[in-house]
Amino acid sequence: MKFALPGMLLIAAALLAQGPAQFTADGELKRPANYREWIFLSSGVGMTYGNQTAQNEANPAFDNVFVEPSAYREFVKTGMWPEGTTFVLEVRRSESETRIGKAGKFQTKAIATEASVKDKRFPDGWGYFDLGTGPSAKVLPQTAACYTCHKNNTAVENTFVQFYPTLMDVAKAKGTVKKTYVE
Amino acid sequence: MKFALPGMLLIAAALLAQGPAQFTADGELKRPANYREWIFLSSGVGMTYGNQTAQNEANPAFDNVFVEPSAYREFVKTGMWPEGTTFVLEVRRSESETRIGKAGKFQTKAIATEASVKDKRFPDGWGYFDLGTGPSAKVLPQTAACYTCHKNNTAVENTFVQFYPTLMDVAKAKGTVKKTYVE
Repeated sequence: MKFALPGMLLIAAALLAQGPAQFTADGELKRPANYREWIFLSSGVGMTYGNQTAQNEANPAFDNVFVEPSAYREFVKTGMWPEGTTFVLEVRRSESETRIGKAGKFQTKAIATEASVKDKRFPDGWGYFDLGTGPSAKVLPQTAACYTCHKNNTAVENTFVQFYPTLMDVAKAKGTVKKTYVE
Repeated sequence: MKFALPGMLLIAAALLAQGPAQFTADGELKRPANYREWIFLSSGVGMTYGNQTAQNEANPAFDNVFVEPSAYREFVKTGMWPEGTTFVLEVRRSESETRIGKAGKFQTKAIATEASVKDKRFPDGWGYFDLGTGPSAKVLPQTAACYTCHKNNTAVENTFVQFYPTLMDVAKAKGTVKKTYVE
């Protein structure tokens, strides 16, 4: 048996240790160490709200979106995000596939990780972060483009659920798509 | 507290219920119901081993690769896949992003789900499946292109770890990249 019970208990323990976003004493968001093991929502390529300097026409950047598992479970049940929800947007360079086919692009080096957090401490209820490479990050100033774009162009709350096909179905079923959102 | 303990225990219970691939009495692979909650390895776009008929030049298909969590943990520890490892490859159509930017592509409808399983019951140690839409699927015949392509073009065992950047780093560190693999 390679899938031993202790290993599975470790996984369970890892999950039990997750939950709402964690902040330092001076209000910085702690870097989520294991976001690659969170729930994947979707990826896009060449989405211009990614890191544009990392893109070129031949090999545009990918963005992967992950959400913390307990927030995901709540959204599946209700179509809404609970307080403390954390998203991570990971931006990766792409390369062209040249071995098997000739047309594809695949992901390589991570070049940026950003986060958004639902928390009442932020004026609009959501804060945005460039995680950089340190152990924690300050919230971006209210003048950052994230705030207006996430307020004006998102399908559910301040989140781009229109780009997460499995969750858009949930939001439609639960009636939580914003009335102002036009498909 | 929106992140109540019962919810977290449910997550833990869901994970504890996972593990090696499950087969019906007559040897068909049971469809993994919750693969979207497995570990995401990477996505590509326009990769020609996807469903080519679903692609066109303007909006090529995306492929998302997920692996069952306990197999992932084992790979992170050893750089090898345990018996029973299950991968799901999900192919989704793309659309062009026209609201925020003008250049990006995002994922929409799922149009195919395929699986690969490491199991000694298969001649080469790995079996490949088109999951279709039913509750279980027969293994594809040994003449299917999957077998030779996964044997000849993969970086670790019969898996395309070269396209999963976080795992390629693990395989290099553990020395499990195939000697025949040329980057």
